[in-house]
Amino acid sequence: MHITYEEELALVKGILTAADFPEEDAGLIAKVITHSDFTGVYSHGLSRLTRYMRQINEGSLNPRPNFRKVLDTGAVMVFDGDNGSGIASVCKAYDQCLERAREFGIAMATGRHNANIGCGSYYGWRAAADDMVAIVCCNTYAFTSPFGGADRLIGTNPIVVGVPAGQEYPMVLDMSTTNVAMGKIQAAEREKQAIPADWAKDYDGNPTTDPSKAFSLSPIAGHKGYGLAVMVDVLSTMFSGACFGTDIGLFSKLEKENTGFCLILIDPSKFMPLDEFKAEVDRYARMMKDSRKAPGAKEIFLPGEIEYKKLAVMKETGLDVSDALARELTELSITLGAVEAGTDFAGLVKHFSA
Amino acid sequence: MHITYEEELALVKGILTAADFPEEDAGLIAKVITHSDFTGVYSHGLSRLTRYMRQINEGSLNPRPNFRKVLDTGAVMVFDGDNGSGIASVCKAYDQCLERAREFGIAMATGRHNANIGCGSYYGWRAAADDMVAIVCCNTYAFTSPFGGADRLIGTNPIVVGVPAGQEYPMVLDMSTTNVAMGKIQAAEREKQAIPADWAKDYDGNPTTDPSKAFSLSPIAGHKGYGLAVMVDVLSTMFSGACFGTDIGLFSKLEKENTGFCLILIDPSKFMPLDEFKAEVDRYARMMKDSRKAPGAKEIFLPGEIEYKKLAVMKETGLDVSDALARELTELSITLGAVEAGTDFAGLVKHFSA
Repeated sequence: MHITYEEELALVKGILTAADFPEEDAGLIAKVITHSDFTGVYSHGLSRLTRYMRQINEGSLNPRPNFRKVLDTGAVMVFDGDNGSGIASVCKAYDQCLERAREFGIAMATGRHNANIGCGSYYGWRAAADDMVAIVCCNTYAFTSPFGGADRLIGTNPIVVGVPAGQEYPMVLDMSTTNVAMGKIQAAEREKQAIPADWAKDYDGNPTTDPSKAFSLSPIAGHKGYGLAVMVDVLSTMFSGACFGTDIGLFSKLEKENTGFCLILIDPSKFMPLDEFKAEVDRYARMMKDSRKAPGAKEIFLPGEIEYKKLAVMKETGLDVSDALARELTELSITLGAVEAGTDFAGLVKHFSA
Repeated sequence: MHITYEEELALVKGILTAADFPEEDAGLIAKVITHSDFTGVYSHGLSRLTRYMRQINEGSLNPRPNFRKVLDTGAVMVFDGDNGSGIASVCKAYDQCLERAREFGIAMATGRHNANIGCGSYYGWRAAADDMVAIVCCNTYAFTSPFGGADRLIGTNPIVVGVPAGQEYPMVLDMSTTNVAMGKIQAAEREKQAIPADWAKDYDGNPTTDPSKAFSLSPIAGHKGYGLAVMVDVLSTMFSGACFGTDIGLFSKLEKENTGFCLILIDPSKFMPLDEFKAEVDRYARMMKDSRKAPGAKEIFLPGEIEYKKLAVMKETGLDVSDALARELTELSITLGAVEAGTDFAGLVKHFSA
């Protein structure tokens, strides 16, 4: 069944509200989850909701956290997420960081005691829409090893950079520092397919092509990706007092993540008239796009451009929700008491969109 | 012939002073070049001096630039390098950025109209020694293509992050966003050796193993490295008005680089007592180093640790300067009128160290 952008927003907000999230937080999280699905990042979309509920039941995700600012010197701030959704934490920290970046030209907000921050590109897009350049990163459940090591101590540690443009698409980079995410390996395992040798290593630290033996994810570009991931750990945890390494909860046990994030916003209008800045970003994008193509390449894309175009298309076509996911979300909603037993997915969507 | 750390400092400062650099600038550049050689990054060490002189002769490097601040809002600043050494520009911008980071917690300095900034790890080390976390990047001569493209529009665009530690080594990441530098391909060409297919592409954009056909360098991790390089371009050029893409000078023609840099400093002591921060960095480093090793790995290293240890060893053994490089530097010094014709390299070193 296909659902519209607005239907997903209402669906996610409805389920989260039923699961005891305050309306404001549910609305913020719904925006990020819907953005994720409608830009094709399904791993961080609707499919996450059931896990959130399991985390709440385990006491490792707090739907009504006492989100608070614990340090504020003007241009730098630290937030404590009280083990609530990292999405809501970053959205709220972002709003305050935005004000400060407009005041100082550059500002930083960092947070501790948060669950996953969701689809990182959302924050890059949001910053670009607010005429800000953003650098965002976070640490995550530990699924990768230090270079030369075999223990799981480092996360997929994504890096996001968002840049506003004028006539062209905003440029938004959102990349993990591992070659693939664990979900991709689990998918290969379900389909009993071998994986490329540079995706993961086994428990002993040897590269493996057997997804069932994959233990730690391989960083991009060997020691370079490891170095980037270490620095994401530093930026995300050291200034905020968030957990790292063995102190991070275990994904498999649904433990509290206790991870951190770092958000740096830079205001281009402090440097030059905003139109001038955006015109230069446009000129850069055009220069890349109009240059000679390599064999097999029909078009050159700037970071985030493919997702931006996908969003436009999907807003027309809607999101295709698989039967399995539709059933899962319907059962979840019935369990939460949001709708009566016997309701089907179409009825559920209609219920929340009303 | 081996020369000591102090001898290289004096040698570089002497040659640069003879080439009309002011004493202050010559001293700053000598520190960075010597750091480069003594941490094993020979590509950015003494071997660069002859090229600098050729650039000066071509009018593309200004030894006596009017380095000036063109924008200052407190936490963000822009500097114009007047086509002087990027090394001197970053060192001077750093000093002012350091003051501002101590005031605001975070500060950013960006520069335009600069030649190459030299060995990036120096700035990471310098920041760590000043108890600062630094993020530094710059764009460079264009040697790589946008993803899916064949034209040379993007540089090796390095990223540097420096982090102070307590008992452990400071952590300093210094990585280019391409798999290798052009120098490594030129070395393979001289030795008539094939290169791995992921090092470079030919003029048409096809991967090549023939170093003589290598035209554009391949980014690390495909589209991810491309994305990082684009964002380094944005941070280094958009805020400062530095050149990018086809506006950058051509390396082969010794043209003005006109590139930019971006320096962000964050003061940990604004977040917590400095000792606490450093103790956490130490704990992180120990956690990584004490973890299980992968087969074949004797030790786990943190970013910059190998270079730090190399520096300690090389300060004992000295730097081995090849006969060819010694001859080159001696001839250069005679041409500059710094020493008399007939002086040998030992005499040259002695002359400047006196």
